[in-house]
Amino acid sequence: MELINSLLNIQSVSGNESQMTEFLIHIVTKRQSRWKVQPEIYYGEQFHDCLLLKFGQPQTAVFSHIDTIGFTVRYENHLVPIGGPEIEHGMKLVGKDRLGPISCSVKEQDGVLLHDFPRAIDRGTLLSFEQEIITDDEFIQAAYLDNRLGIYNCLRLCEDLQDGWVVFSTYEEHGGGSMPFLLKFIQETAPIKHALISDITWITDGIHHHEGVVISMRDKLIPRKSFLNRIVSLAEKSKIPFQLEVEGQGSSDGREIQFSPYAIDWCFIGAAEDNVHTPYEKVSLKDLESMVLMYKYLLRYL
Amino acid sequence: MELINSLLNIQSVSGNESQMTEFLIHIVTKRQSRWKVQPEIYYGEQFHDCLLLKFGQPQTAVFSHIDTIGFTVRYENHLVPIGGPEIEHGMKLVGKDRLGPISCSVKEQDGVLLHDFPRAIDRGTLLSFEQEIITDDEFIQAAYLDNRLGIYNCLRLCEDLQDGWVVFSTYEEHGGGSMPFLLKFIQETAPIKHALISDITWITDGIHHHEGVVISMRDKLIPRKSFLNRIVSLAEKSKIPFQLEVEGQGSSDGREIQFSPYAIDWCFIGAAEDNVHTPYEKVSLKDLESMVLMYKYLLRYL
Amino acid sequence: MELINSLLNIQSVSGNESQMTEFLIHIVTKRQSRWKVQPEIYYGEQFHDCLLLKFGQPQTAVFSHIDTIGFTVRYENHLVPIGGPEIEHGMKLVGKDRLGPISCSVKEQDGVLLHDFPRAIDRGTLLSFEQEIITDDEFIQAAYLDNRLGIYNCLRLCEDLQDGWVVFSTYEEHGGGSMPFLLKFIQETAPIKHALISDITWITDGIHHHEGVVISMRDKLIPRKSFLNRIVSLAEKSKIPFQLEVEGQGSSDGREIQFSPYAIDWCFIGAAEDNVHTPYEKVSLKDLESMVLMYKYLLRYL
Repeated sequence: MELINSLLNIQSVSGNESQMTEFLIHIVTKRQSRWKVQPEIYYGEQFHDCLLLKFGQPQTAVFSHIDTIGFTVRYENHLVPIGGPEIEHGMKLVGKDRLGPISCSVKEQDGVLLHDFPRAIDRGTLLSFEQEIITDDEFIQAAYLDNRLGIYNCLRLCEDLQDGWVVFSTYEEHGGGSMPFLLKFIQETAPIKHALISDITWITDGIHHHEGVVISMRDKLIPRKSFLNRIVSLAEKSKIPFQLEVEGQGSSDGREIQFSPYAIDWCFIGAAEDNVHTPYEKVSLKDLESMVLMYKYLLRYL
Repeated sequence: MELINSLLNIQSVSGNESQMTEFLIHIVTKRQSRWKVQPEIYYGEQFHDCLLLKFGQPQTAVFSHIDTIGFTVRYENHLVPIGGPEIEHGMKLVGKDRLGPISCSVKEQDGVLLHDFPRAIDRGTLLSFEQEIITDDEFIQAAYLDNRLGIYNCLRLCEDLQDGWVVFSTYEEHGGGSMPFLLKFIQETAPIKHALISDITWITDGIHHHEGVVISMRDKLIPRKSFLNRIVSLAEKSKIPFQLEVEGQGSSDGREIQFSPYAIDWCFIGAAEDNVHTPYEKVSLKDLESMVLMYKYLLRYL
Repeated sequence: MELINSLLNIQSVSGNESQMTEFLIHIVTKRQSRWKVQPEIYYGEQFHDCLLLKFGQPQTAVFSHIDTIGFTVRYENHLVPIGGPEIEHGMKLVGKDRLGPISCSVKEQDGVLLHDFPRAIDRGTLLSFEQEIITDDEFIQAAYLDNRLGIYNCLRLCEDLQDGWVVFSTYEEHGGGSMPFLLKFIQETAPIKHALISDITWITDGIHHHEGVVISMRDKLIPRKSFLNRIVSLAEKSKIPFQLEVEGQGSSDGREIQFSPYAIDWCFIGAAEDNVHTPYEKVSLKDLESMVLMYKYLLRYL
């Protein structure tokens, strides 16, 4: 929980993920001696704000995006959304510009988003949801569970991963842009055949809290059926609780794998949340645990 | 006609094209000894469910997609479309899940698509239109003429092709995804300058049955004018009947060539159909024959 | 001004930019002896209608698109737009087909665009706005300032550029398609870390004539914050007038850099215009001059 709390308190709106990258480098450096296998670590300007860990001889990569939705400050107190935040009147935002820290509320007026900070904010400043973490025995509720829990899942996976890439990508919430160069680097360094997307999905009519991690059979994009069949058959063998989703909307880092110049099978696997893209996203702790277990299982047997 | 009938009776909804690939490998193996030139044949996991044939020293590639539109089964009898099927109340769908074969009807209710199969169907099962083939002296009518006829055209082209790639792609109906890795492989193996898209287009105000194969001067995307001029000038010399289309909508495998990291000119050339994306697409046999002749001519003189 | 006038009088609708390429090759050949550094020049079929100039040891590339919006002639006097032209009743268009020069007007009828040329025009013919250039001490007004002024800026930059790529791209107005192969060639020849988009933006509530070149902190896409910070800090040091824009709409060649398989930072920098995508786009001459100065400064210190 301490790790999840730390992840939830770092700001990394799409386009400005460097703080999260630094934290992850710190965590990896601190923890890796306790991991079963020591990964090769790749980061730096050549990778912008992304981070890659290569364990052993990979056949599979796990991708977790480290950016979040948020807002860019315009002029005349206007805000422009980053990704697709749900807007509620009075919702609290935080950030920082050259004059200091910012805390303000949002309102929507004639289709325009406005902040109420008493002074002008530097143009281009990034704001994100004020964080409030609420946990009980069953649930965690906070802003940005999507995708801090996906990151958490990856760090847990590292503990006993023998062969595989663990990759932290940027810009996912705003259409992507890091996956193409990450995939190029991976395929030219230690190529993969399969990719799993460690991300958070939605509670729907067919997906319920506490019933296990979600294996998405499709969203707006469609993974290859033969790969889905293999994943589902392994999931059944694992005895770990899981649910199957079929959606017509939404997408993930899987989209950029689908359209990449590499023949890589991909599948989105993650816990489901209520209140998507609000400051109070909510995930079942049981589903999170089955997500962690399922990734450990699949990376072993895939 | 026997070949066209066989092609029309194979199910290969986007994401699950392996049955069609297997059939094509079978056909190619059986027929190639009668072809003028023996192609190199590329397929297997490295190419997912695609298939490439390399004849001689290619300058040009012909692309034909082997997937079709269809539906993914969700839960609560819901269906999610794959590609853009036209929905009509009562339209028959077929498929197969772990409990056996499926035959059902579709209805639309409050904007949701529902099937009426008496039992629950496995989540993620793929359904496609029930096939009914009707032919007379002038027309062929069936589901999935788009793009079984494009495949047929390619197989006819193989008969006397000397230099060129013939490529069978997947996922075209649902936004693509195989073209990028196919193009990368082609450009790194035996690079091309030109590409023709062997696919089926639409009857419109300017395009009529029996008036010849359609050369598309644009759809949503715009081929390079200098290449179009060259194609049209060859088409005129050929004396084969053709029509020129100018559309603002629609796209094809040409889209992914346009946006690829290779400078390849492309053009969509194919017969036109009525009742697009329904179970009773209809194409003039004369137009199909002029499509076959035009491809044979262009691949010789381009 | 003579150079700007020449650029404004060349037709190069997306898909048919070869006339502009030829003009640029001619100008570069004529002028380069007076430039501080002699560039390597790349053009020809391998680059379709694009042109690249490599000066010294580049870290940065400047991209300027050479295509314009326009119309494709369909049948029954219909027109299909290329890019997003603003339509006004009676607006004059010009072009040429096999029967000779064309000059006509547009009208919109029941959502369809029609021309009034007395004879049928060849299918696929490209039309563009009739050109009328009006200048005074403060402004230039003409069709296609977007992006003839971006090209002009690049040619001025060449005068004393020591290290950098200057790249003329095609198809930008209609979704792109040349940037992917240009970027591949650049990264395989003399790779860059940064890209500037030399293009024209919009007068908005926050951007005014005569107040300097615009540095766009985002449009539909979002450049990396750390790169923006560096650009803005250099711009402040330069003492050259500039304005900061934050938009939620629109995109540029920067889009294809964002989604390319290379980790390249990018930023759109250009003068703002009134009457976007009409025949009477209008730019402040002061803003154009500060655009030229800012590019010269940034290419030296970036």
